[in-house]
Amino acid sequence: MKRRDCLALMGATSILAGCAGLPPATGTGDLGVVVARATGTLAIVNTSERKVLAEVQGLGDLSHASVVFSRDGRYAYVFGRDGGLTKVDLLTRRIAGRVMQAGNSIGGAISADGSMVVAQNYTPGGIKVFDAATLALLADIPAEYAPGKLSRVVGLVDLPGRRFAYSLFDADEIWISDLSTPAQPRTTRLRNIGHQPYDALVTPNGRHYIAGLFGEDGLAMVDLWEEKPRVRRILAGYGRGQEPLPVYKMPHLRGWAVAGRRAYLPAIGRHEVLVVDTDTWQEVGRIAVAGQPVFVMARPDGRQVWVNFAVPDYHRVQVIDTTTQQIVRTLEPGKAVLHMEFTPRGESVWISARDDHRVTVFDTQSFAVQATMTIDSPSGIFFTSRAARLGF
Amino acid sequence: MKRRDCLALMGATSILAGCAGLPPATGTGDLGVVVARATGTLAIVNTSERKVLAEVQGLGDLSHASVVFSRDGRYAYVFGRDGGLTKVDLLTRRIAGRVMQAGNSIGGAISADGSMVVAQNYTPGGIKVFDAATLALLADIPAEYAPGKLSRVVGLVDLPGRRFAYSLFDADEIWISDLSTPAQPRTTRLRNIGHQPYDALVTPNGRHYIAGLFGEDGLAMVDLWEEKPRVRRILAGYGRGQEPLPVYKMPHLRGWAVAGRRAYLPAIGRHEVLVVDTDTWQEVGRIAVAGQPVFVMARPDGRQVWVNFAVPDYHRVQVIDTTTQQIVRTLEPGKAVLHMEFTPRGESVWISARDDHRVTVFDTQSFAVQATMTIDSPSGIFFTSRAARLGF
Repeated sequence: MKRRDCLALMGATSILAGCAGLPPATGTGDLGVVVARATGTLAIVNTSERKVLAEVQGLGDLSHASVVFSRDGRYAYVFGRDGGLTKVDLLTRRIAGRVMQAGNSIGGAISADGSMVVAQNYTPGGIKVFDAATLALLADIPAEYAPGKLSRVVGLVDLPGRRFAYSLFDADEIWISDLSTPAQPRTTRLRNIGHQPYDALVTPNGRHYIAGLFGEDGLAMVDLWEEKPRVRRILAGYGRGQEPLPVYKMPHLRGWAVAGRRAYLPAIGRHEVLVVDTDTWQEVGRIAVAGQPVFVMARPDGRQVWVNFAVPDYHRVQVIDTTTQQIVRTLEPGKAVLHMEFTPRGESVWISARDDHRVTVFDTQSFAVQATMTIDSPSGIFFTSRAARLGF
Repeated sequence: MKRRDCLALMGATSILAGCAGLPPATGTGDLGVVVARATGTLAIVNTSERKVLAEVQGLGDLSHASVVFSRDGRYAYVFGRDGGLTKVDLLTRRIAGRVMQAGNSIGGAISADGSMVVAQNYTPGGIKVFDAATLALLADIPAEYAPGKLSRVVGLVDLPGRRFAYSLFDADEIWISDLSTPAQPRTTRLRNIGHQPYDALVTPNGRHYIAGLFGEDGLAMVDLWEEKPRVRRILAGYGRGQEPLPVYKMPHLRGWAVAGRRAYLPAIGRHEVLVVDTDTWQEVGRIAVAGQPVFVMARPDGRQVWVNFAVPDYHRVQVIDTTTQQIVRTLEPGKAVLHMEFTPRGESVWISARDDHRVTVFDTQSFAVQATMTIDSPSGIFFTSRAARLGF
């Protein structure tokens, strides 16, 4: 093709830019999505301009939906509660692929090399592994802990080297699957890890996998850097079982915050955030907060920890200064605050208020409102910078 | 514009893709650049495909060049030794802007919000602040430490809130400039920080700014989270001054590695890596290595630290396992290894060997070679994931 033809066509690009569905030339490092759960819609947002760029419909049941991103930041993989796995192209702003992969699903992960996407399922209990490019099924690992018995799977995280760790709620087990050869998965089973693991996280360095236990006090921890990983119980007797309290909403462990040497953990059912030393894994403090914590999230630099709450305190957000362990601010960003997401370097945080149909962007230093957006019943907020992080 | 017109034009997009200079629709999260110093050329690379996508020429003197990225990952800002600041569009693969901003420059930084790019200069000594979109000059801060005397500036890093810290080699000072209102910069001067700060780094959480001292033993550290930051001397007597050794190449502090609670620092002139506890800032160990270390870099998960060396040992790279402090591998990636860069989640590392005109990609787990590329005298390697990190 000759240069003059190119130039002629280039003149058409400004017209092309006006056509829906054509990829605009844009970096993807400052893009993200907000789940509009009531309408099965994904809002594509830009964190530099602080606005909604487009809405993509037809994603099914998005209650409790979660999202991971392709390595290049172009595609969002959305795990719907109804078992739908949808690949959304943030550039063309369209659905690039969709499979119904289970009857009841609760999230997923993507391998560090970006080659495979994994869904964790309640029904049928297990994990399924998909080609990130085509969504073709690469492996199916039922969580069959006893003949004919499948467990619901929770707490799935990616590990280095195409490995994934996850917890079996009904089997009291943690499994680690090595998918370096997807056709021949090798799974390590850790048994008797504690009763009813309900969610889990991996520390930002990929070393410690920690599952919360609903059925008893304490948490289960695995040091994944040990040659033969084994389970150790931590924070036994932190209060979960002592005085059974009504639990209005289960906390989300993926949001648990590691800031410097300390982890900040939501105490189940209590109006407290637990402070834990990540060297000894002993509790070193408790911070009284305004309600039952749901997400406890460190700003990327670890200087602040932001907390939202279960009903009836879910109109509030509190900010802890990690140098003093004091609450330095209480905000009221709207009714039913469901999620928060920091911009990559932490200068802003986006907060969704479902019942006010509003997302608010705060300056994390001055607490000033930088922007608000109207989105129908917003819940989870996810930015493409997650693609560069382990365990998200 | 009607839909059918759009569709007609869309048919042209596959042709358009064949035209040089037209933005391809692609994510920018897995892009990066390699500096080809001998020819003033920047190679644009893709870390998923592990290949060179294009070469952009005309960037001037790129010896000791460094690069930061726009918040969206689309633009690379290249600081050349000759004072040229070039903005390269990774999508159109062209120069989007270029200014000659100084006579002799040694690197730069970008603010967390992506709005301003800052260059640190030797001649005239000081920093200059540019609009990241237009490259218009926003502020000029000469490093005038005494009437009519300008110092060379080194160790520039970005801090939260449009602030920047940097060191004055000739003045033994550290300055912190608040550019929240660029027309009215507010600069805090810390004096008598130690003799001849030659480079510096900020820890990944943005808390500790540490300047290496060429003129004496020890390093200068500032806790930026204190209300009134002041300088503290650390690692006094670590050996720099005891027995003057020939120094074949100054180590680069920006590459200094924080892995968990420990920092791994190059000992100037010695065949050693210092291990420092980041709580106490005391030395807790030394690791003997194959030469004078230049870059000492942690894999993103902190499990490994990779080290390259000054002449005559600059054909080697060594890998330290941080759980045992032992060297677990010695690689020979080519002649004159100048730089290393990890992929965002650390599954691979890219290494440049200048005199073999080769960049090699290694699997960091198996140490297998995943790819090699021919690039003319490659030096610095920079991936867009730096845009999401503080202090890079």
